[in-house]
Amino acid sequence: MTKNKKGLVIVNTGNGKGKSTAAFGVVLRAWGRGMRICVIQFIKAGTGKWGEVKAAQKLGIEWLSTGDGFTWLSRDMDETTARAQHGWKMAQEKIASDHYDLILLDEFTYPLQFGWVAVKDVIAWLKEHKPPMLHLIITGRDAPQELIEFADLVTEMKEIKHPYEEKGIPAQAGIEF
Amino acid sequence: MTKNKKGLVIVNTGNGKGKSTAAFGVVLRAWGRGMRICVIQFIKAGTGKWGEVKAAQKLGIEWLSTGDGFTWLSRDMDETTARAQHGWKMAQEKIASDHYDLILLDEFTYPLQFGWVAVKDVIAWLKEHKPPMLHLIITGRDAPQELIEFADLVTEMKEIKHPYEEKGIPAQAGIEF
Repeated sequence: MTKNKKGLVIVNTGNGKGKSTAAFGVVLRAWGRGMRICVIQFIKAGTGKWGEVKAAQKLGIEWLSTGDGFTWLSRDMDETTARAQHGWKMAQEKIASDHYDLILLDEFTYPLQFGWVAVKDVIAWLKEHKPPMLHLIITGRDAPQELIEFADLVTEMKEIKHPYEEKGIPAQAGIEF
Repeated sequence: MTKNKKGLVIVNTGNGKGKSTAAFGVVLRAWGRGMRICVIQFIKAGTGKWGEVKAAQKLGIEWLSTGDGFTWLSRDMDETTARAQHGWKMAQEKIASDHYDLILLDEFTYPLQFGWVAVKDVIAWLKEHKPPMLHLIITGRDAPQELIEFADLVTEMKEIKHPYEEKGIPAQAGIEF
Protein backbone atom coordinates (compact mmCIF):
# COMPACT_ATOMS: atom_id res chain seq x y z
CA MET A 1 0.00 0.00 0.00
CA THR A 2 1.54 3.27 -1.09
CA LYS A 3 1.09 6.37 0.97
CA ASN A 4 -1.17 8.02 -1.61
CA LYS A 5 -3.45 5.11 -2.35
CA LYS A 6 -5.83 3.64 0.15
CA GLY A 7 -9.13 1.86 0.04
CA LEU A 8 -11.62 4.18 1.69
CA VAL A 9 -14.51 3.22 3.93
CA ILE A 10 -17.25 5.62 2.90
CA VAL A 11 -20.59 6.12 4.67
CA ASN A 12 -23.52 8.05 3.14
CA THR A 13 -26.17 8.60 5.78
CA GLY A 14 -28.90 11.09 6.78
CA ASN A 15 -32.62 11.60 6.10
CA GLY A 16 -32.20 13.12 2.62
CA LYS A 17 -32.12 11.77 -0.90
CA GLY A 18 -28.85 10.85 -2.56
CA LYS A 19 -27.28 8.32 -0.18
CA SER A 20 -27.62 5.35 -2.52
CA THR A 21 -27.66 7.59 -5.57
CA ALA A 22 -24.27 9.11 -4.77
CA ALA A 23 -22.95 5.57 -4.26
CA PHE A 24 -24.31 4.65 -7.72
CA GLY A 25 -22.51 7.73 -9.05
CA VAL A 26 -19.27 6.37 -7.58
CA VAL A 27 -20.07 2.99 -9.17
CA LEU A 28 -20.47 4.74 -12.55
CA ARG A 29 -17.23 6.67 -12.08
CA ALA A 30 -15.34 3.52 -11.01
CA TRP A 31 -16.83 1.60 -13.95
CA GLY A 32 -15.57 4.41 -16.21
CA ARG A 33 -12.07 3.63 -14.92
CA GLY A 34 -12.42 -0.10 -15.47
CA MET A 35 -12.53 -0.97 -11.77
CA ARG A 36 -13.96 -4.27 -10.52
CA ILE A 37 -17.23 -3.59 -8.73
CA CYS A 38 -19.75 -5.55 -6.67
CA VAL A 39 -23.01 -4.15 -5.29
CA ILE A 40 -24.95 -5.92 -2.54
CA GLN A 41 -28.36 -4.48 -1.81
CA PHE A 42 -29.93 -4.96 1.57
CA ILE A 43 -33.64 -4.32 2.23
CA LYS A 44 -34.69 -3.59 -1.38
CA ALA A 45 -35.48 -6.59 -3.55
CA GLY A 46 -32.98 -6.65 -6.40
CA THR A 47 -35.40 -7.06 -9.27
CA GLY A 48 -34.98 -5.44 -12.66
CA LYS A 49 -37.60 -2.80 -11.94
CA TRP A 50 -35.06 -0.29 -10.59
CA GLY A 51 -33.28 2.02 -13.06
CA GLU A 52 -29.96 1.35 -11.36
CA VAL A 53 -30.39 -2.43 -11.68
CA LYS A 54 -31.27 -2.07 -15.36
CA ALA A 55 -28.13 0.04 -15.84
CA ALA A 56 -25.93 -2.42 -13.93
CA GLN A 57 -27.22 -5.29 -16.05
CA LYS A 58 -26.36 -3.37 -19.23
CA LEU A 59 -22.91 -2.46 -17.86
CA GLY A 60 -22.13 -5.97 -16.63
CA ILE A 61 -21.74 -4.85 -13.01
CA GLU A 62 -22.20 -7.62 -10.44
CA TRP A 63 -25.35 -6.72 -8.49
CA LEU A 64 -26.68 -8.96 -5.73
CA SER A 65 -29.60 -8.70 -3.39
CA THR A 66 -29.85 -10.29 0.01
CA GLY A 67 -32.42 -12.67 -1.41
CA ASP A 68 -29.92 -14.05 -3.96
CA GLY A 69 -28.96 -17.62 -3.15
CA PHE A 70 -31.01 -17.44 0.01
CA THR A 71 -32.43 -20.68 1.38
CA TRP A 72 -34.64 -20.65 4.39
CA LEU A 73 -33.25 -22.95 7.10
CA SER A 74 -34.08 -21.48 10.47
CA ARG A 75 -37.29 -21.96 12.39
CA ASP A 76 -36.17 -19.65 15.15
CA MET A 77 -35.60 -16.52 13.21
CA ASP A 78 -37.54 -13.90 11.38
CA GLU A 79 -36.97 -14.09 7.61
CA THR A 80 -35.92 -10.43 7.37
CA THR A 81 -33.18 -11.05 9.93
CA ALA A 82 -32.09 -14.22 8.14
CA ARG A 83 -31.92 -12.43 4.79
CA ALA A 84 -29.86 -9.61 6.27
CA GLN A 85 -27.44 -12.09 7.83
CA HIS A 86 -27.26 -13.98 4.56
CA GLY A 87 -26.48 -10.67 2.82
CA TRP A 88 -23.68 -9.94 5.27
CA LYS A 89 -22.28 -13.44 4.62
CA MET A 90 -22.30 -12.75 0.87
CA ALA A 91 -20.61 -9.42 1.56
CA GLN A 92 -17.93 -11.10 3.66
CA GLU A 93 -17.17 -13.55 0.85
CA LYS A 94 -16.92 -10.78 -1.72
CA ILE A 95 -14.79 -8.56 0.53
CA ALA A 96 -12.42 -11.34 1.62
CA SER A 97 -12.01 -12.59 -1.97
CA ASP A 98 -9.88 -9.52 -2.81
CA HIS A 99 -11.30 -9.67 -6.35
CA TYR A 100 -12.83 -6.19 -6.27
CA ASP A 101 -11.76 -2.55 -6.25
CA LEU A 102 -15.12 -1.27 -5.01
CA ILE A 103 -17.89 -2.94 -3.02
CA LEU A 104 -21.14 -1.17 -2.20
CA LEU A 105 -23.27 -2.42 0.69
CA ASP A 106 -26.41 -0.50 -0.14
CA GLU A 107 -28.79 0.22 2.76
CA PHE A 108 -26.60 -1.83 5.07
CA THR A 109 -27.15 0.59 7.97
CA TYR A 110 -30.66 -0.78 8.47
CA PRO A 111 -29.60 -4.31 9.47
CA LEU A 112 -26.99 -2.70 11.74
CA GLN A 113 -29.48 -0.25 13.22
CA PHE A 114 -32.09 -2.93 13.86
CA GLY A 115 -29.51 -5.28 15.34
CA TRP A 116 -29.99 -8.00 12.72
CA VAL A 117 -26.23 -7.89 12.23
CA ALA A 118 -24.07 -6.65 15.13
CA VAL A 119 -22.13 -3.51 14.23
CA LYS A 120 -19.21 -4.37 16.52
CA ASP A 121 -18.81 -7.75 14.81
CA VAL A 122 -18.91 -6.13 11.39
CA ILE A 123 -16.22 -3.60 12.29
CA ALA A 124 -14.01 -6.20 13.99
CA TRP A 125 -14.32 -8.42 10.92
CA LEU A 126 -13.58 -5.57 8.49
CA LYS A 127 -10.51 -4.53 10.48
CA GLU A 128 -9.14 -8.01 10.00
CA HIS A 129 -10.34 -8.92 6.51
CA LYS A 130 -10.93 -5.85 4.35
CA PRO A 131 -8.18 -5.71 1.70
CA PRO A 132 -6.29 -2.41 2.22
CA MET A 133 -6.90 -1.19 -1.35
CA LEU A 134 -10.63 -2.06 -1.46
CA HIS A 135 -13.04 0.86 -1.40
CA LEU A 136 -16.13 0.02 0.64
CA ILE A 137 -19.29 2.14 0.59
CA ILE A 138 -22.10 1.70 3.10
CA THR A 139 -25.35 3.64 2.72
CA GLY A 140 -28.55 4.16 4.70
CA ARG A 141 -30.15 6.32 7.38
CA ASP A 142 -29.00 6.38 10.99
CA ALA A 143 -25.48 5.02 10.55
CA PRO A 144 -24.37 3.73 13.99
CA GLN A 145 -21.79 5.90 15.75
CA GLU A 146 -19.24 3.03 15.79
CA LEU A 147 -19.47 2.84 12.00
CA ILE A 148 -18.99 6.60 11.66
CA GLU A 149 -15.90 6.38 13.85
CA PHE A 150 -14.53 3.50 11.78
CA ALA A 151 -15.18 5.17 8.38
CA ASP A 152 -12.78 7.44 6.50
CA LEU A 153 -15.37 9.59 4.76
CA VAL A 154 -18.86 10.27 6.11
CA THR A 155 -21.47 12.45 4.47
CA GLU A 156 -24.91 13.27 5.80
CA MET A 157 -27.55 13.81 3.13
CA LYS A 158 -30.02 16.22 4.68
CA GLU A 159 -33.47 16.86 3.33
CA ILE A 160 -34.08 20.57 2.76
CA LYS A 161 -37.12 20.30 0.51
CA HIS A 162 -38.99 17.32 -0.84
CA PRO A 163 -41.72 17.28 -3.50
CA TYR A 164 -43.72 14.49 -1.83
CA GLU A 165 -44.31 16.58 1.20
CA GLU A 166 -44.59 20.05 -0.24
CA LYS A 167 -46.46 19.40 -3.43
CA GLY A 168 -47.70 15.82 -3.24
CA ILE A 169 -45.61 14.74 -6.24
CA PRO A 170 -44.87 11.00 -6.29
CA ALA A 171 -41.39 9.50 -6.97
CA GLN A 172 -40.35 9.79 -10.61
CA ALA A 173 -39.04 6.78 -12.59
CA GLY A 174 -35.44 7.21 -13.73
CA ILE A 175 -34.83 9.94 -11.18
CA GLU A 176 -35.61 8.49 -7.78
CA PHE A 177 -35.66 4.79 -8.61
CA MET B 1 -48.69 16.42 -18.17
CA THR B 2 -50.42 13.80 -16.06
CA LYS B 3 -50.87 14.33 -12.37
CA ASN B 4 -48.31 11.65 -11.48
CA LYS B 5 -45.54 12.65 -13.84
CA LYS B 6 -43.64 15.86 -13.58
CA GLY B 7 -40.18 17.03 -14.50
CA LEU B 8 -38.48 17.81 -11.19
CA VAL B 9 -36.06 20.63 -10.49
CA ILE B 10 -33.51 19.05 -8.17
CA VAL B 11 -30.77 20.87 -6.26
CA ASN B 12 -27.87 19.09 -4.52
CA THR B 13 -25.97 21.55 -2.37
CA GLY B 14 -23.92 21.72 0.86
CA ASN B 15 -20.26 21.43 1.85
CA GLY B 16 -20.09 17.62 1.72
CA LYS B 17 -19.20 15.08 -0.94
CA GLY B 18 -21.85 13.58 -3.14
CA LYS B 19 -23.53 16.57 -4.78
CA SER B 20 -22.27 15.85 -8.28
CA THR B 21 -21.86 12.17 -7.53
CA ALA B 22 -25.53 11.72 -6.61
CA ALA B 23 -26.41 13.55 -9.84
CA PHE B 24 -24.20 11.07 -11.74
CA GLY B 25 -26.07 8.29 -9.96
CA VAL B 26 -29.34 9.73 -11.29
CA VAL B 27 -27.73 9.91 -14.75
CA LEU B 28 -26.83 6.20 -14.49
CA ARG B 29 -30.34 5.32 -13.31
CA ALA B 30 -31.95 7.37 -16.09
CA TRP B 31 -29.58 5.82 -18.66
CA GLY B 32 -30.67 2.41 -17.35
CA ARG B 33 -34.24 3.39 -18.30
CA GLY B 34 -33.25 4.61 -21.76
CA MET B 35 -33.87 8.29 -20.99
CA ARG B 36 -32.30 11.05 -23.10
CA ILE B 37 -29.64 12.80 -21.05
CA CYS B 38 -27.41 15.84 -21.39
CA VAL B 39 -24.76 16.90 -18.86
CA ILE B 40 -23.25 20.39 -18.89
CA GLN B 41 -20.34 20.87 -16.55
CA PHE B 42 -19.52 24.31 -15.25
CA ILE B 43 -16.17 25.15 -13.59
CA LYS B 44 -14.48 21.74 -14.16
CA ALA B 45 -12.81 21.26 -17.53
CA GLY B 46 -14.56 18.39 -19.30
CA THR B 47 -11.52 16.37 -20.23
CA GLY B 48 -11.38 12.61 -20.31
CA LYS B 49 -9.40 12.43 -17.08
CA TRP B 50 -12.49 12.17 -14.87
CA GLY B 51 -14.01 8.76 -14.22
CA GLU B 52 -17.51 10.10 -14.88
CA VAL B 53 -16.47 11.53 -18.26
CA LYS B 54 -14.84 8.23 -19.23
CA ALA B 55 -18.06 6.44 -18.26
CA ALA B 56 -20.26 8.91 -20.17
CA GLN B 57 -18.14 8.46 -23.29
CA LYS B 58 -18.52 4.67 -23.04
CA LEU B 59 -22.28 5.01 -22.48
CA GLY B 60 -22.81 7.54 -25.26
CA ILE B 61 -24.17 10.19 -22.89
CA GLU B 62 -23.90 13.76 -24.21
CA TRP B 63 -21.44 15.55 -21.93
CA LEU B 64 -20.44 19.14 -22.49
CA SER B 65 -18.18 21.49 -20.62
CA THR B 66 -18.49 25.28 -20.62
CA GLY B 67 -15.36 25.41 -22.72
CA ASP B 68 -17.01 23.40 -25.54
CA GLY B 69 -17.60 25.56 -28.61
CA PHE B 70 -16.37 28.58 -26.70
CA THR B 71 -14.81 31.42 -28.68
CA TRP B 72 -13.37 34.38 -26.93
CA LEU B 73 -14.99 37.59 -28.19
CA SER B 74 -15.18 40.07 -25.35
CA ARG B 75 -12.45 42.41 -24.27
CA ASP B 76 -14.48 43.71 -21.36
CA MET B 77 -15.03 40.50 -19.49
CA ASP B 78 -13.09 37.99 -17.49
CA GLU B 79 -12.77 34.67 -19.32
CA THR B 80 -14.25 32.70 -16.42
CA THR B 81 -17.38 34.86 -16.54
CA ALA B 82 -17.59 34.54 -20.31
CA ARG B 83 -17.26 30.74 -20.12
CA ALA B 84 -19.99 30.52 -17.48
CA GLN B 85 -22.31 32.67 -19.60
CA HIS B 86 -21.49 30.57 -22.64
CA GLY B 87 -22.31 27.46 -20.57
CA TRP B 88 -25.68 28.91 -19.57
CA LYS B 89 -26.36 29.69 -23.25
CA MET B 90 -25.61 26.05 -24.15
CA ALA B 91 -27.87 24.97 -21.28
CA GLN B 92 -30.70 27.19 -22.53
CA GLU B 93 -30.44 25.67 -26.02
CA LYS B 94 -30.51 22.14 -24.66
CA ILE B 95 -33.37 22.85 -22.25
CA ALA B 96 -35.50 24.70 -24.80
CA SER B 97 -34.93 21.99 -27.46
CA ASP B 98 -37.23 19.60 -25.56
CA HIS B 99 -35.03 16.73 -26.80
CA TYR B 100 -34.07 15.50 -23.34
CA ASP B 101 -35.62 13.77 -20.34
CA LEU B 102 -32.84 14.78 -17.95
CA ILE B 103 -30.38 17.67 -18.02
CA LEU B 104 -27.68 18.07 -15.39
CA LEU B 105 -26.09 21.49 -14.85
CA ASP B 106 -23.14 20.34 -12.77
CA GLU B 107 -21.60 22.94 -10.42
CA PHE B 108 -23.92 25.59 -11.79
CA THR B 109 -24.40 27.17 -8.35
CA TYR B 110 -20.92 28.73 -8.58
CA PRO B 111 -21.67 31.00 -11.56
CA LEU B 112 -24.92 31.94 -9.78
CA GLN B 113 -23.19 32.52 -6.47
CA PHE B 114 -20.43 34.64 -8.02
CA GLY B 115 -22.95 36.62 -10.06
CA TRP B 116 -21.51 35.57 -13.44
CA VAL B 117 -25.05 34.54 -14.35
CA ALA B 118 -27.96 36.27 -12.56
CA VAL B 119 -30.06 33.80 -10.57
CA LYS B 120 -33.29 35.81 -11.06
CA ASP B 121 -32.81 35.74 -14.85
CA VAL B 122 -32.17 31.99 -14.77
CA ILE B 123 -35.33 31.29 -12.76
CA ALA B 124 -37.48 33.62 -14.88
CA TRP B 125 -36.19 31.92 -18.03
CA LEU B 126 -36.74 28.41 -16.63
CA LYS B 127 -40.30 29.29 -15.59
CA GLU B 128 -41.04 30.20 -19.18
CA HIS B 129 -38.96 27.68 -21.15
CA LYS B 130 -38.34 24.48 -19.17
CA PRO B 131 -40.42 21.70 -20.73
CA PRO B 132 -42.81 20.44 -17.99
CA MET B 133 -41.57 16.83 -18.24
CA LEU B 134 -37.85 17.64 -18.23
CA HIS B 135 -35.94 16.75 -15.07
CA LEU B 136 -33.31 19.36 -14.30
CA ILE B 137 -30.56 18.83 -11.74
CA ILE B 138 -28.33 21.64 -10.48
CA THR B 139 -25.39 20.91 -8.19
CA GLY B 140 -22.82 22.89 -6.20
CA ARG B 141 -22.19 24.54 -2.84
CA ASP B 142 -24.11 27.56 -1.59
CA ALA B 143 -27.21 27.27 -3.75
CA PRO B 144 -28.87 30.72 -3.76
CA GLN B 145 -32.06 30.98 -1.71
CA GLU B 146 -34.12 31.91 -4.80
CA LEU B 147 -33.03 28.67 -6.46
CA ILE B 148 -33.94 26.64 -3.36
CA GLU B 149 -37.38 28.23 -3.35
CA PHE B 150 -37.83 27.47 -7.06
CA ALA B 151 -36.67 23.82 -6.81
CA ASP B 152 -38.90 20.81 -6.09
CA LEU B 153 -36.30 18.67 -4.31
CA VAL B 154 -33.35 20.07 -2.39
CA THR B 155 -30.76 18.03 -0.54
CA GLU B 156 -27.87 19.35 1.49
CA MET B 157 -24.79 17.11 1.48
CA LYS B 158 -23.10 17.78 4.79
CA GLU B 159 -19.56 16.78 5.58
CA ILE B 160 -19.37 14.75 8.78
CA LYS B 161 -15.90 13.30 8.34
CA HIS B 162 -13.36 13.64 5.57
CA PRO B 163 -10.15 11.68 5.07
CA TYR B 164 -8.18 14.66 3.75
CA GLU B 165 -8.60 16.50 6.97
CA GLU B 166 -8.51 13.72 9.48
CA LYS B 167 -5.88 11.43 8.05
CA GLY B 168 -4.24 13.37 5.24
CA ILE B 169 -5.43 10.91 2.60
CA PRO B 170 -5.63 12.41 -0.92
CA ALA B 171 -8.58 11.99 -3.28
CA GLN B 172 -8.82 8.50 -4.74
CA ALA B 173 -9.21 7.88 -8.50
CA GLY B 174 -12.49 6.20 -9.42
CA ILE B 175 -14.04 7.15 -6.10
CA GLU B 176 -13.85 10.90 -5.81
CA PHE B 177 -13.09 11.81 -9.44
